[in-house]
Amino acid sequence: MYSKDDTICALSTPPGLGAIAVIRCSGAGALETAGKIIQFPNGRHALSEQAPNTIHFATVYDDSQIVDQVMVAVFRSPHSYSGEDIVEISCHGSPYIQKRILELLVDSGARMATAGEFTMRAFLNGKLDLTQVEAVADLISSGSRAAHQVAMRQMRGGFTHEIKKLRDKLLNFTSLVELELDFSEEDVEFADRGQLKALLDKITDTLSRLSDSFALGNVIKNGIPVAIVGKTNVGKSTLLNLLVSEEKAIVSDIAGTTRDSIEDLISIRGVHFRLIDTAGLRHTEDAIEKLGIERTWQKIDQAAVIIQVLDTASNPEEITHLTQQMKAAPGAEEKHRIVVLNKMDTVTTEKLEKIMTGFNGLLSRSEPLIALSAKSGTNLARLEQALVEVSGSAVAGENDVIITNVRHYEALEKALSAMKRASDGLACGLTGDLLAQDIRETLHYLGEITGEITNDEVLGNIFRNFCIGK
Amino acid sequence: MYSKDDTICALSTPPGLGAIAVIRCSGAGALETAGKIIQFPNGRHALSEQAPNTIHFATVYDDSQIVDQVMVAVFRSPHSYSGEDIVEISCHGSPYIQKRILELLVDSGARMATAGEFTMRAFLNGKLDLTQVEAVADLISSGSRAAHQVAMRQMRGGFTHEIKKLRDKLLNFTSLVELELDFSEEDVEFADRGQLKALLDKITDTLSRLSDSFALGNVIKNGIPVAIVGKTNVGKSTLLNLLVSEEKAIVSDIAGTTRDSIEDLISIRGVHFRLIDTAGLRHTEDAIEKLGIERTWQKIDQAAVIIQVLDTASNPEEITHLTQQMKAAPGAEEKHRIVVLNKMDTVTTEKLEKIMTGFNGLLSRSEPLIALSAKSGTNLARLEQALVEVSGSAVAGENDVIITNVRHYEALEKALSAMKRASDGLACGLTGDLLAQDIRETLHYLGEITGEITNDEVLGNIFRNFCIGK
Repeated sequence: MYSKDDTICALSTPPGLGAIAVIRCSGAGALETAGKIIQFPNGRHALSEQAPNTIHFATVYDDSQIVDQVMVAVFRSPHSYSGEDIVEISCHGSPYIQKRILELLVDSGARMATAGEFTMRAFLNGKLDLTQVEAVADLISSGSRAAHQVAMRQMRGGFTHEIKKLRDKLLNFTSLVELELDFSEEDVEFADRGQLKALLDKITDTLSRLSDSFALGNVIKNGIPVAIVGKTNVGKSTLLNLLVSEEKAIVSDIAGTTRDSIEDLISIRGVHFRLIDTAGLRHTEDAIEKLGIERTWQKIDQAAVIIQVLDTASNPEEITHLTQQMKAAPGAEEKHRIVVLNKMDTVTTEKLEKIMTGFNGLLSRSEPLIALSAKSGTNLARLEQALVEVSGSAVAGENDVIITNVRHYEALEKALSAMKRASDGLACGLTGDLLAQDIRETLHYLGEITGEITNDEVLGNIFRNFCIGK
Repeated sequence: MYSKDDTICALSTPPGLGAIAVIRCSGAGALETAGKIIQFPNGRHALSEQAPNTIHFATVYDDSQIVDQVMVAVFRSPHSYSGEDIVEISCHGSPYIQKRILELLVDSGARMATAGEFTMRAFLNGKLDLTQVEAVADLISSGSRAAHQVAMRQMRGGFTHEIKKLRDKLLNFTSLVELELDFSEEDVEFADRGQLKALLDKITDTLSRLSDSFALGNVIKNGIPVAIVGKTNVGKSTLLNLLVSEEKAIVSDIAGTTRDSIEDLISIRGVHFRLIDTAGLRHTEDAIEKLGIERTWQKIDQAAVIIQVLDTASNPEEITHLTQQMKAAPGAEEKHRIVVLNKMDTVTTEKLEKIMTGFNGLLSRSEPLIALSAKSGTNLARLEQALVEVSGSAVAGENDVIITNVRHYEALEKALSAMKRASDGLACGLTGDLLAQDIRETLHYLGEITGEITNDEVLGNIFRNFCIGK
């Protein structure tokens, strides 16, 4: 299933029309395969004679017919992304040309790569461990500064270095414990139980810390969930459009096409927010006026931040209703509320101040009240500032190690549970063979994280999520 | 407006998520600008010290924070696409990373490139003439083998070489005619009128041939217009979907995202067909049964090929109705008809043969009748073969020079008309100064084609159609 004997090729740049496209070809036969369709001007050298890490003007031929004039980069094993010989062809960004060149490579003996297969070969050739592989996929799909930083840290080694070190120490102890079994009749103790306990405690600490970071990692990767609630005629939709379109204006210069699928994801000063659809509220006006927001409470339950939108004519009771509802919700102490007083420009400054004083009296000190105009965009910056501030706890420190991956989280939890059994066993003087078994189990789960222990199913799941061409 | 003093940068690969993305930076300051954000491992060398045409692993920094690990290719003026120093950064294909790197380049002194600006610099630096520039845009948007070949031929010099040669000869003659004016009192004749006439005839021939090729070029560039006509319940829509989805299956592996906008363009064995929407027919069943297809005749007028779909229960009169309608249409002799007998599998072989014999009696020898099943796809290959055959005349020979560009066509027509005046003038012994004026005008229009004579408006129109990053 995971052979690395043949030569693979794929389009590595996003599909579609562009100035240029890059086609990648990797494998022991990459130079020979690509060499069959490429000619250099005036017959200068063959592709296989080019120095590594050089890039050349060349022509791609289909028999005698010119397919494109391209740039060809040559990389030599092991100094390449996959660890194998790689040829990268930069052609004109026409889908027709991309397709023709791939067809020609396949005709010359290459095979179309499966999703993530270049990265898989990097893993099989020992260029990347499994968490680094997963970080590559995260890095590509990261849409915010925070998510990008976490993925980058992980790709550059991140927490696996720590895990590997602890695992090696633990492995050493296990060997000593297991050695005792060979001398069981002599009742010797090679492994110092005191030192072993200290090591188990230290590993438990580290693993707990990593496992605990998963909640935060998940928020960073997927965005802080924000619900905008309020009656439709207070300008909730206008505000939502304003928040989303501000972001769109920034992003669409470059990445317009990717917006469709993440239309409710916005990023303010590097922090990612996921706007939760509370559209249901639009059809339940009476229910809102009377009872607040029960109907959509299930959705609001998922939110870490709730933006309550009111206008200058709103009934102050809406605030207290929501306060009660929030108190009753699970995880209430971790929810933040920002109250927005919309349509500020429809009343006099004097009136506005009066309304704000009234509203403020119903809010706690940590709940900001922001007067703005969603229509004109006035004071939008204040709302964005408030969002960044209340979400401050969700932004990781520069060097914090954070788990974002469910697979890692599950392996950590399993390792922790085996660890606890080993610690308990140690405390009540369990025999060496049973102790060794629990420690072996811990070693297994830690090895699963880095890929030292793996199986085809796990690999299949990881690489399925990759783009083709990576 | 068309400065080349500063350093420009842009994303050159299609926008969106992919394995890798390429950011291009061009200008005298490209190495210095990109050098500010790039570091090589262990501080090895600076970017500006790298040899030309080499590619290196490096890290992009935002102050002390790592933005990405990238590959950096270095090209030196004049041996680059734009003729200037160029740095190409291959980063991970995350929209966030693409955006950050571009922002960092701009912060370091580069400017975002406008559409086609790298190619514009190649033109300003004499790397490409204007028809080659236009061919680059055509090449990128070419979706069929024929369109690709025409654009590739034009990009590699194509017909401008011929035009330039003729223009130089003509320029030489004009100088001689104009020299006569200086000696007008002596009544000398430096320019041999016989040779001049021969040259004018030769140029007229060449320009006429090029101008005539425009009709064909237009078909190659935009596809051969094909109308599928027939009643809805005979399976017209099923057939259309079959034709389109066959093509989709081939193309979507690579270029799925570009299909949306060209959903009615299909390509069979390298020939491009543009399916004309005749959806109007769906609501005019009675009219069809009685009178054929008058209602959508306007659309069918545009078609070079008409696929008439019938089923085993169809009235043979439909064939004769369409024959009459086609005869009455403008350009009737250039229209081709293919008759499809759908639902072939709903009758016995014997019955099918009888129906086909009946239908065939109503068709001319050049009009193929194909029995197929649009539902199962049986005999679709025969229809495709017939389409390729009837469109044979629209496929250019290997080395034919073909005009596809409206701008070239218009300049050729203007040059031809000035040429005719010069020829007429020569025939009736026009004086040298008037003759010179007509020839000068021809020279002007020929120069416009290659870009030897140009203006900002023309350049603006050409580059507006480019992708940013090319």
